[in-house]
Amino acid sequence: MNPSTALLTDHYELTMIEAALESGHADRPCVFEAFARRLPDGRRYGVVAGTGRILQALPDFRFGDAELAWLRERDVVDGRTLDWLADYRFTGDIWGYAEGEVYFPGSPLLVVESTFAEGVVLETLVLSILNHDSAVASAASRMTAAAGERPCIEMGSRRTHEESAVAAARAAYVAGFASTSNLEAGRRHGIPTAGTAAHSYTLLHDDERDAFANQLASLGAGTTLLVDTYDVTAAVRLAVELAGPALGAVRLDSGDLLGQAHGVRAQLDALGATGTRIVVTSDLDEHAIAALQSAPVDSYGVGTSVVTGSGHPAAGMVYKLVSRESDAGVMEGVAKASTDKASVGGRKFALRRRGADGLAQAEIIGIDERPSDDGDDRDLLVPLVSRGEVVAPTDVRTAREHHAAARAELPQRALRLSHGDPAIPTTYLDDWS
Amino acid sequence: MNPSTALLTDHYELTMIEAALESGHADRPCVFEAFARRLPDGRRYGVVAGTGRILQALPDFRFGDAELAWLRERDVVDGRTLDWLADYRFTGDIWGYAEGEVYFPGSPLLVVESTFAEGVVLETLVLSILNHDSAVASAASRMTAAAGERPCIEMGSRRTHEESAVAAARAAYVAGFASTSNLEAGRRHGIPTAGTAAHSYTLLHDDERDAFANQLASLGAGTTLLVDTYDVTAAVRLAVELAGPALGAVRLDSGDLLGQAHGVRAQLDALGATGTRIVVTSDLDEHAIAALQSAPVDSYGVGTSVVTGSGHPAAGMVYKLVSRESDAGVMEGVAKASTDKASVGGRKFALRRRGADGLAQAEIIGIDERPSDDGDDRDLLVPLVSRGEVVAPTDVRTAREHHAAARAELPQRALRLSHGDPAIPTTYLDDWS
Repeated sequence: MNPSTALLTDHYELTMIEAALESGHADRPCVFEAFARRLPDGRRYGVVAGTGRILQALPDFRFGDAELAWLRERDVVDGRTLDWLADYRFTGDIWGYAEGEVYFPGSPLLVVESTFAEGVVLETLVLSILNHDSAVASAASRMTAAAGERPCIEMGSRRTHEESAVAAARAAYVAGFASTSNLEAGRRHGIPTAGTAAHSYTLLHDDERDAFANQLASLGAGTTLLVDTYDVTAAVRLAVELAGPALGAVRLDSGDLLGQAHGVRAQLDALGATGTRIVVTSDLDEHAIAALQSAPVDSYGVGTSVVTGSGHPAAGMVYKLVSRESDAGVMEGVAKASTDKASVGGRKFALRRRGADGLAQAEIIGIDERPSDDGDDRDLLVPLVSRGEVVAPTDVRTAREHHAAARAELPQRALRLSHGDPAIPTTYLDDWS
Repeated sequence: MNPSTALLTDHYELTMIEAALESGHADRPCVFEAFARRLPDGRRYGVVAGTGRILQALPDFRFGDAELAWLRERDVVDGRTLDWLADYRFTGDIWGYAEGEVYFPGSPLLVVESTFAEGVVLETLVLSILNHDSAVASAASRMTAAAGERPCIEMGSRRTHEESAVAAARAAYVAGFASTSNLEAGRRHGIPTAGTAAHSYTLLHDDERDAFANQLASLGAGTTLLVDTYDVTAAVRLAVELAGPALGAVRLDSGDLLGQAHGVRAQLDALGATGTRIVVTSDLDEHAIAALQSAPVDSYGVGTSVVTGSGHPAAGMVYKLVSRESDAGVMEGVAKASTDKASVGGRKFALRRRGADGLAQAEIIGIDERPSDDGDDRDLLVPLVSRGEVVAPTDVRTAREHHAAARAELPQRALRLSHGDPAIPTTYLDDWS
């Protein structure tokens, strides 16, 4: 049995359940929806990630003896609510965008159909996972698009919380990264792991020659030598002298990467090391990767920017009650009235409208009604949980393939890095029909 | 026994150990140092947080059967390295800034004295914790400084990874937040938890009157009613009508908070609810809190901005080999030569120079030599781990008290929110003497 995820929850979710139990409204049929009101400033699309992690966390969302004892001791909620929590198990249905799907403002990313109490208590955990993982995947997708065929290696573990690091490696892989430096992500999610060489290793030795010779003796000529600890030109010469033309790669981690890449490539070629690759790794983001598109670089190691969402560390998703049964026993759409935080009431359905060329044209959202398929369209909401049972794949490879296919459907303008509008408009069925 | 933290590590840390074992350099006495080259753009000081979490993670940094089996299966390192990892246990010394301490560019936040292999393998985990927790605490400290005597409530769990959320609540508490909405942070770290009321709870009911009446019946007049679901003025009137003047608080979560706070305060007072507090919670950061200083607001609920470091989600700390024994058997300072990522070689000591008035004047850093105390100064490096054993407190209350005292020593200019230079200069002993 895994550790409980149930206390990864805001205090008020439980007090709201207490009040709803008192008033007799806790069991009202409800629909909750997770969506983003907007994309981060100027982005053309977002990427849904974390869905698999939500589905894996759901069966562990149980209030065990330890959790209940703490809630009782701190008097967070009353005895009736504790009894209800002790029996908690999600028994409703969840629909959602498949992990890896691209999304736009208003896309109904997750639709939770359950009683009020069963659904409201999941809010914090669902949003934590979606907001974090989607922020990373959305940034990572821009990087892999800019990198084209060249592999991106996620190496940002040290720049984010130690468990976020594992989730970030997973989200980056969904969005097309080739590998991660994070070993736990390798073990937990089966993501390929990779590593290069460290400055500390070179500095450990009295001189660079010793360091390179020892690394080659231990790890073989196919290893990656770090050539910017002292003087890059001298280090490249030394590296090929010691390893021969079979040297796997050299890594550049500072300075003017564009100029250095050209210089190092020419030097490697002149030394006969035409197969030796160049890995660059210094503060890269999607813009730096794009600026290196014409440089002789073979792979990109990306750290801080990918794990922190390249300027947007949270995807801005919210989880709102959008429909509930009324006193009269009918389902009614509900929404907060405020102008700056508006939401659209009603149970949503979503379709990606595609042209005959297969390219996406619009995000069509139906309210309380499924939009009709024009023949080339694609349904976006897939069943994730049915009567409490997980019915969708949670693995990262399925999500990665889905992302590649979904991104390939977007019009070319979606991949521009400059600020712009969402690549396709979001259209509510009322407007469209 | 807790889960192992050992695979929360970059792939290359282990391959570097393999190479160092091969070359016979793995056991060289070394000094590693964690520091930040600079503060985030325009900040006046940073706050060290996470030290207690590092010390709690250290005993669990062991390679157990499951970790070793995975490393063997994936052929990450060779058999000799696996044997070494199986016996791994940190046996060195660690010095560091006390958790909650303020810091400046170059401050030696953690000094790890051990063999190369014992120290290098901790790099990723140490930096993950320090970079994340310090980013949150540094932002949180600006918020609590701007809030003055008014309490700040951390409620950003849903905007960050679910485990980061727990660590963020802890770091915010170190930096003076009064409470958190995160229940697991309450259980794990003993931080006070708090909650208000949710829009979904109001929307669950057919009308606002039912929702308020039921919440008051369940949670009592001391509860916080959320008054911005429909019309604020009508909701405040209804809230006092139902709860009477004993109503605990009302929460505003949208719109023009400054204008609304004045209006709602006047309305509450006119209705006789002079003791009812006003909680504001919409997209607050340190600047919004400062803008509300003159408004009749009683507490601030802060979400996204605190858990994501208010624009700087990673504190930019690095972990560098700064000294190691040479072939000749003497300790030598070492440093990478690059101009944009320079570090200063040598084992550091640090002193906060204070005037007779007790105010901080400079960060004095000695290289391979302890700076001499002028009488009013304060030593900054305290023993954290001695011969592998944790010797410092790891609890959050000690850190919180330390932060309050350390911040109180800073000159008033440190608390300005505008962009500026670090509040005190960092001076290396060579320059100072």
